[in-house]
Amino acid sequence: MHFFGFSLLHTDATTCARLGRITTPHGEIATPAFAPVGTQATVKALDPRDLRELGAELILSNTYHLYLRPGAGVVAALGGLHRFMDWDGPILTDSGGFQVFSLAGRRTSSDEGVLFRSHIDGSQHLFTPEMVIHVQEQLGADIIMCLDECAEPHDRAYNEQALARTHVWAARCLTAHSRPDQALFGIVQGGIWADLRQQSAEYLTGLGFPGYAIGGLSVGESKAQMYAMLDVTARLLPADKPRYLMGVGAPEDLLEGVTRGIDLFDCVLPTRLARNAALFTRRGRINLRNARFEQDAAPAEVGCGCYTCRHFTLAYLHHLFKAEELLAYRLATIHNVHFLLQLMRNIRAAIAQGRFPALKEEFLAGYRVIPEETRDANQERRGAAHKTYTDEAR
Amino acid sequence: MHFFGFSLLHTDATTCARLGRITTPHGEIATPAFAPVGTQATVKALDPRDLRELGAELILSNTYHLYLRPGAGVVAALGGLHRFMDWDGPILTDSGGFQVFSLAGRRTSSDEGVLFRSHIDGSQHLFTPEMVIHVQEQLGADIIMCLDECAEPHDRAYNEQALARTHVWAARCLTAHSRPDQALFGIVQGGIWADLRQQSAEYLTGLGFPGYAIGGLSVGESKAQMYAMLDVTARLLPADKPRYLMGVGAPEDLLEGVTRGIDLFDCVLPTRLARNAALFTRRGRINLRNARFEQDAAPAEVGCGCYTCRHFTLAYLHHLFKAEELLAYRLATIHNVHFLLQLMRNIRAAIAQGRFPALKEEFLAGYRVIPEETRDANQERRGAAHKTYTDEAR
Repeated sequence: MHFFGFSLLHTDATTCARLGRITTPHGEIATPAFAPVGTQATVKALDPRDLRELGAELILSNTYHLYLRPGAGVVAALGGLHRFMDWDGPILTDSGGFQVFSLAGRRTSSDEGVLFRSHIDGSQHLFTPEMVIHVQEQLGADIIMCLDECAEPHDRAYNEQALARTHVWAARCLTAHSRPDQALFGIVQGGIWADLRQQSAEYLTGLGFPGYAIGGLSVGESKAQMYAMLDVTARLLPADKPRYLMGVGAPEDLLEGVTRGIDLFDCVLPTRLARNAALFTRRGRINLRNARFEQDAAPAEVGCGCYTCRHFTLAYLHHLFKAEELLAYRLATIHNVHFLLQLMRNIRAAIAQGRFPALKEEFLAGYRVIPEETRDANQERRGAAHKTYTDEAR
Repeated sequence: MHFFGFSLLHTDATTCARLGRITTPHGEIATPAFAPVGTQATVKALDPRDLRELGAELILSNTYHLYLRPGAGVVAALGGLHRFMDWDGPILTDSGGFQVFSLAGRRTSSDEGVLFRSHIDGSQHLFTPEMVIHVQEQLGADIIMCLDECAEPHDRAYNEQALARTHVWAARCLTAHSRPDQALFGIVQGGIWADLRQQSAEYLTGLGFPGYAIGGLSVGESKAQMYAMLDVTARLLPADKPRYLMGVGAPEDLLEGVTRGIDLFDCVLPTRLARNAALFTRRGRINLRNARFEQDAAPAEVGCGCYTCRHFTLAYLHHLFKAEELLAYRLATIHNVHFLLQLMRNIRAAIAQGRFPALKEEFLAGYRVIPEETRDANQERRGAAHKTYTDEAR
């Protein structure tokens, strides 16, 4: 019996864009797909009905957070993560490696694993490859991840050392993994060095995973560097397995990732931006706190099919943010998640119809990308060396 | 054409409980009814679809808050309060008197009106009877309220003076009122003095309103005093007009109010308690932060029909509150509002079937009422003299 499967349905004629379908015990995922993030077993401000209505087919949750609170044993005793959060669709859990390695000054790593202090209460914990597989088996997601060491991308020596460890850990994770209903993905690392990325892709492919993630990107390197690493890495991964770019969710990056053959993405960007009053529109981001929206009777995006845009004006959303009403976060989150999921639907339709390059060109021509310097200042793309990711995981 | 109407359908044989129906331009309200409070044009943590699903037939919004932010003119320019907040059912706005008089030290009243400083930015404003009617006409609710002076209930001299002013203002409100599609209610005051309550009921009845509110209760007096004032007042109000007890929403008070012939209630209690992790159950309140719920696989209330109880365990709700997730407030609010609206549905069915006294007895036998001292300490019933109500109106 095959619990997990990937069918490559179509590859674009002029780019590496792929149309596919992932099968899991909790349903299918049309790819390329974007997964909203539910760090603590809830996509912030949304309930599972919202996610269904938005058309989400995969959500991500964080092993690090759930291990610490409420505890993987508690989740297991309550029937697993799907029942715990009442989401019966596919779930992916990351391994916790990314969060733990972002705990600068609060963790020490060795070949055995990573010793770290909880961001909640300072208590000490050890994550080993075997341990994170066990925790993820308790949580019960459909797709689980190997423990990896996410190095600062510009530090060559650290990346070499981290990569060797990541590879040994990947093999240990494969050995430890026992639940046949969960697909364990390997994670390619290597910072911004093409030869390390190549080495990692070849080593992990040799181990034989049902899917491959590309980690250690969108953590402080430039966009050009990120795209270059995708160019190098994706082509080395087997065509018949899904490719997952971790922690990436800006609209322009989704398009560039798909162009390079990526099938899966996840990111906190739509939900985090929403809580900061920033909405995606086809022309770029807007901020609902801006006084120019005070009396604006238009929706955030004319023609948008989301609940928020069908029912509420910019003036009302502006009012909710000014008044610090809880509904503000919910309505803004609905719009942003819809925006990315609709973009992915449009991308899939375009690939199927052989017009993906045209869609990409048209979208990017109208969409004002936030300059990278501004983003770094806003900590929307946050370097692992500068900031921990544990308060709100990627 | 009659925009507003009230039909008295049935009166209980052994109590003063009444079954009725209010007609408004935005639909009917089966009475006795409880109105959730949407202070700033949103019932905190809920969207209008939630309110429909919960079966809310009337919501309250606050003139004081909307006048200050976003401004009644802004709401009017956007098509009125119903369109602004996307709620097409009946709305009641209070006059702002209650909030303004709770601004101890920041307001001075005269026969002309009340001069006060905004709790948001300290700016100075004057509310006169004519002004609050104008503002409420701009907002466009189905039921609007006279400006009243809400005095500290134990201060006889202040109550006498405030009552005289409230009566003059009521007459001025009636004169100022011009929109035939809005029903203007008078507000009976008089603190804890039966003779003042009697005087107020008689005076206002003489002016002839389409409905009468009883104000100045649940503001620091004892429950026994409140019930005594209801006994005195309700019988003096015309049987063919709805009676509205302002700011009251504890389950036991709803039952006692209905017993005494009250048709409408509003209160922030279900929504405020929810944000503090407190849920109503048939046995009394529980607090979701309690460690005993950490692994509890039961819903908050077995058999409860609300979305929260049908889909989530106590353990999950406990986790959401511990993790400070936004979904916590939403799910808890859904349950608490459902609890009160279901109680009102049960009350209406019981009155119709001649078994209201039995329902009341059965409910109160199972429901542990929080002692008043504890409540006062918790500021769940907050005295106007001790605390302003403007941060979150009654």
